[in-house]
Amino acid sequence: MSIRIGIYGYGNLGRGVESAIKQNPDLQAVGVFTRRDPSTVKTQTGIPVYHALDAIKMVNDIDVMIICGGSATDLPEQTPYLANYFNVIDSFDTHAKIPTHLKNVDDVCAKSGKTAVISVGWDPGMFSLNRLLAGAILVDGKDYTFWGKGVSQGHSDAIRRIDGVLDAKQYTIPVESSLDAVRGGTNPELTTRQKHVRECFVVAKDGADLDRIETEIKTMPNYFADYDTTVHFISMEELKLNHSGIPHGGVVIRTGKTGLNGENKHVIEYKLTLDSNPEFTSSVLVAYARAVYKMNKDGITGAKTVLDVPPIYLSSKSRDELISTLL
Amino acid sequence: MSIRIGIYGYGNLGRGVESAIKQNPDLQAVGVFTRRDPSTVKTQTGIPVYHALDAIKMVNDIDVMIICGGSATDLPEQTPYLANYFNVIDSFDTHAKIPTHLKNVDDVCAKSGKTAVISVGWDPGMFSLNRLLAGAILVDGKDYTFWGKGVSQGHSDAIRRIDGVLDAKQYTIPVESSLDAVRGGTNPELTTRQKHVRECFVVAKDGADLDRIETEIKTMPNYFADYDTTVHFISMEELKLNHSGIPHGGVVIRTGKTGLNGENKHVIEYKLTLDSNPEFTSSVLVAYARAVYKMNKDGITGAKTVLDVPPIYLSSKSRDELISTLL
Repeated sequence: MSIRIGIYGYGNLGRGVESAIKQNPDLQAVGVFTRRDPSTVKTQTGIPVYHALDAIKMVNDIDVMIICGGSATDLPEQTPYLANYFNVIDSFDTHAKIPTHLKNVDDVCAKSGKTAVISVGWDPGMFSLNRLLAGAILVDGKDYTFWGKGVSQGHSDAIRRIDGVLDAKQYTIPVESSLDAVRGGTNPELTTRQKHVRECFVVAKDGADLDRIETEIKTMPNYFADYDTTVHFISMEELKLNHSGIPHGGVVIRTGKTGLNGENKHVIEYKLTLDSNPEFTSSVLVAYARAVYKMNKDGITGAKTVLDVPPIYLSSKSRDELISTLL
Repeated sequence: MSIRIGIYGYGNLGRGVESAIKQNPDLQAVGVFTRRDPSTVKTQTGIPVYHALDAIKMVNDIDVMIICGGSATDLPEQTPYLANYFNVIDSFDTHAKIPTHLKNVDDVCAKSGKTAVISVGWDPGMFSLNRLLAGAILVDGKDYTFWGKGVSQGHSDAIRRIDGVLDAKQYTIPVESSLDAVRGGTNPELTTRQKHVRECFVVAKDGADLDRIETEIKTMPNYFADYDTTVHFISMEELKLNHSGIPHGGVVIRTGKTGLNGENKHVIEYKLTLDSNPEFTSSVLVAYARAVYKMNKDGITGAKTVLDVPPIYLSSKSRDELISTLL
């Protein structure tokens, strides 16, 4: 019998979850839940669409609800609410608020007996897990995280809000020489500017003042002022042709020393190169949905993170098969 | 109160465990257990040396025994025996025999109520864990493992057994162009020869027939015949000066596709670059020793693998701290 998954929210992430479930024969997509009028939403694979308010009528039809809302306002409400009724997964990524969110969800799970894993994805998510593993092994060491090359949605949006801009795409790119220095084990102290550069592709309105737009981008506090930023003005056609994807990725590196006198150096590196940020995140969510189902079956309840989940729960294969083939 | 560790066996691995424990303030090395006459063994940090037969007199002084014997004959006997009395860790690495070894240790733990983690290290170990994680996320994909650049002890030994050879060191090196092809997502089918080359540094006896030695190496079945092998004859001084380390490493890569029609490619890569193979392995053993202690405290008993252990148990830091700093 397959594990029955509900998809709560149907943006990029929800659609990614739908296609990821299709790759996993032990999982089944029961339906999509939306705050829009369900009759206006058509799913990619033909699975049914329900109104979000009707989710709680389906407590007996869904084993795990994957919540695909946004971190700013959706998830802080949706995840605790739905944990009253379902085992849940979310990708809450406002780092500073994770402990509060975890406690809120855990309080609900304590009453409902459900299992939740919050902040699932790659950062937070697989990157966090790798920081934990590498830090536990190389105790005397230093962590580095580089993001990109990838599209930053927030930075692209910030450019689009500038007067005279029709559309824009912003790429975050690690500085290669800094990456090399880290991998070389020299433990450099890197400033924001030394870690990443920002490259912007901007479509301006006809007759707009390009110099002013470029200056506004490059001097924008928090978003661009602390980085070396390049601005390219291009046509709408070129933007659509060459910059319509949502690639991302990054690397977590820990360098450290062992030996009685720290005489031996080591580098642990975990690297992701992703054509589609939301589809990869969705694939992680789906693997953890399987784990949540199994943990709940085994009596492990409450709100968890990727740091808590025994890895074996993530796979569809049996423990015997995993041990004999992977170990 | 610190976690009290016994070190059973005092070769490269045991010495690595001793120095790794020194880096972890929450752990304490109680002593070394050896089959040699204890009076002939001097430890690097001055911890006491006991005879292996006396270990079972110290059941109340040791929380976890890290067993540092060899996989061929030591561990199949030592780990089940010691699991009668102690929580144990080993680095059993005979892949084909892992399921049998796991069962043997688990049968003992079922009676003793102890916790064991077997086959800890990097391969088997962290590489196995990464194969599991990557495979659970990128379901439609392919795994690749490359080893090196690193010293293969078994291959170095094989060269040393050739008539006329005084000493030798063999390096396994991944073929860079194959690595690039894998990272590029072209899913190549690679032969043994296409994955790794072997480079040998050989010290020959005065007047030995170098051509014959080189031919014997390059045509040695299983060890070298299936690889492109390079042989360098060097002096004993040069061998000692430039080839006395035991570096190793490698990379586990999984490439896979997502999307309704597999239209998006992704690459997950876990890479280790290690100055000292035994010291890194020891650092992994020590982190899992901490986990074994905590699991046993929490009532999780039996024989486990790295695939089973909740990652959070590996760190000396509290869950709250890990969640607020790493996630």
